[in-house]
Amino acid sequence: MRIVFLGTGAGMPSRRRNVSAIALDLTEENEGIWLFDCGEGTQHQLLKSPLKMGKINRLFITHLHGDHIYGIPGLLTSRGYQGGESPLVVYGPPGIKSYISAVLNISDARLPYDCEIVEIGEEGALFAEGEYKVSVHKLEHRIDSYGFRIEEKDRIGSLDADKLRKLGVPPGPLYGCLKKGQSVRLDDGTVINGQDFIGPGQRGRTIAILGDTRYCAAAKKLAARADLLVHEATFSGELEDLAHKYYHATSRQAAEIARDSGVRTLVLTHISQRYQDDAEQLEAEAREIFRRTYLAEDLWSIEIPRLSHSGEEV
Amino acid sequence: MRIVFLGTGAGMPSRRRNVSAIALDLTEENEGIWLFDCGEGTQHQLLKSPLKMGKINRLFITHLHGDHIYGIPGLLTSRGYQGGESPLVVYGPPGIKSYISAVLNISDARLPYDCEIVEIGEEGALFAEGEYKVSVHKLEHRIDSYGFRIEEKDRIGSLDADKLRKLGVPPGPLYGCLKKGQSVRLDDGTVINGQDFIGPGQRGRTIAILGDTRYCAAAKKLAARADLLVHEATFSGELEDLAHKYYHATSRQAAEIARDSGVRTLVLTHISQRYQDDAEQLEAEAREIFRRTYLAEDLWSIEIPRLSHSGEEV
Repeated sequence: MRIVFLGTGAGMPSRRRNVSAIALDLTEENEGIWLFDCGEGTQHQLLKSPLKMGKINRLFITHLHGDHIYGIPGLLTSRGYQGGESPLVVYGPPGIKSYISAVLNISDARLPYDCEIVEIGEEGALFAEGEYKVSVHKLEHRIDSYGFRIEEKDRIGSLDADKLRKLGVPPGPLYGCLKKGQSVRLDDGTVINGQDFIGPGQRGRTIAILGDTRYCAAAKKLAARADLLVHEATFSGELEDLAHKYYHATSRQAAEIARDSGVRTLVLTHISQRYQDDAEQLEAEAREIFRRTYLAEDLWSIEIPRLSHSGEEV
Repeated sequence: MRIVFLGTGAGMPSRRRNVSAIALDLTEENEGIWLFDCGEGTQHQLLKSPLKMGKINRLFITHLHGDHIYGIPGLLTSRGYQGGESPLVVYGPPGIKSYISAVLNISDARLPYDCEIVEIGEEGALFAEGEYKVSVHKLEHRIDSYGFRIEEKDRIGSLDADKLRKLGVPPGPLYGCLKKGQSVRLDDGTVINGQDFIGPGQRGRTIAILGDTRYCAAAKKLAARADLLVHEATFSGELEDLAHKYYHATSRQAAEIARDSGVRTLVLTHISQRYQDDAEQLEAEAREIFRRTYLAEDLWSIEIPRLSHSGEEV
């Protein structure tokens, strides 16, 4: 599970930061690549990354501002040109369906794969499939803007076969019972408990990826105890009034959300293009409030490790 | 008058060629920058070029396929973010108006400048303003696709003031008459003819920029005796059947159009992404038919010189 930041700038592209797009790479988990937002030039950023466009099987749109959606038509059509035939599901606010169909129709584009478009209705659970469930909550922006919480199922620990073999327990159907943590009686009458042979379990990872927003309570709900929170930080703390006026957040506010939600790591993105070489100040001021903060850069990626239930990397 | 090729690839971007966009830089002529087509990522290409987005005052769209129009919404909105307040006129096939308004509406975008959208009606004259007139003809493509012919007015030669002064004719109102080629009588009774003091005139330059097309007669009409023809060359000559099937042209066909139309220079663009390092073959095979052929590359530019009426560079 790796997050690749494809576009980390707000509003319009600069040479340093493209407009919004974040890839959650779940290919190692056999879940494909999930893309969050798709500003203009996202397909160009994919060309510069190790990610394959055809592996994108879910596209989540936080809100309908141009810097988050103008790259969708090109991504959808290029995915087809490249021979992508596997289905794609797009989740987004009401209006996403008419946007995509209007643009594809007018440009005479036909997709050679199934493209289901799901408009977000009520807040809460969006879907649950396999090891993952995704929920959605509305943030506070000039237009409807959503945050997504992705939760992975916990994994139970694996059976310590070496330890069992040393005790003279041969591999066989017994192992299945032990793996479930049950007690079993061996041929010699000894009773052993599966719990004693199971390694530490792993907590499922939780990621919160938020759209544009002011500092708001919904952000905390989405971020609660997450391994990673991706929060916008359009402005530095000294421009809090401007942030409020334009329905955006400051890096300090993002850090407060992270601290109050008990997240493990915070990544700041959606940086105003007014910050170029001096964008590091946003990271520095956020770290005063929440130490494990990182400023995203285009094409930068971060691996999300599995943790044990006691919080250690496994 | 300079043409800057911003995107020279067909269908979808590659790392070497972005999708279609061509800038006709008329800033030295005080006419701004005219952009022809605007595929996704055109604003990103502009950031890498010496051209200023705010100077674009006319946008011509050849046809509504995605690789020619998906960059329009981002260009229009970024032009506003950058403080562009001067008006912009967009010319394009019927449908361009609803495309632009649908996308801007759904993404809650308001442009801080006047954006007039002119849907192409009858073929022929599109507009004539100042030193330039533009006409349009339909090409042969899967959907309506147009070519534009830009014609600059001829310039009369400039008056040779040095020669006049040597003859003892002092600067004054007489110069105005002489400049028009009239005869005037000097104080001493001598009659001199303005024609004898006017340098060589300059032919106005003619540029033809064509949208996607099969080899067709309209291309020759648009290109007739042009200083520069920009013609698509999606495929090499050996793929003529494929070109025909997909309503495109080969580099050989483009060269035949150039040769038969008496153009001065041919530039090939809209190159299939199947050609990467081997795209030079398209130029080579076109040169067998028409010597002054150049293969466009992204961010490559070509200056269009003024010629005298006898065809020499002035």
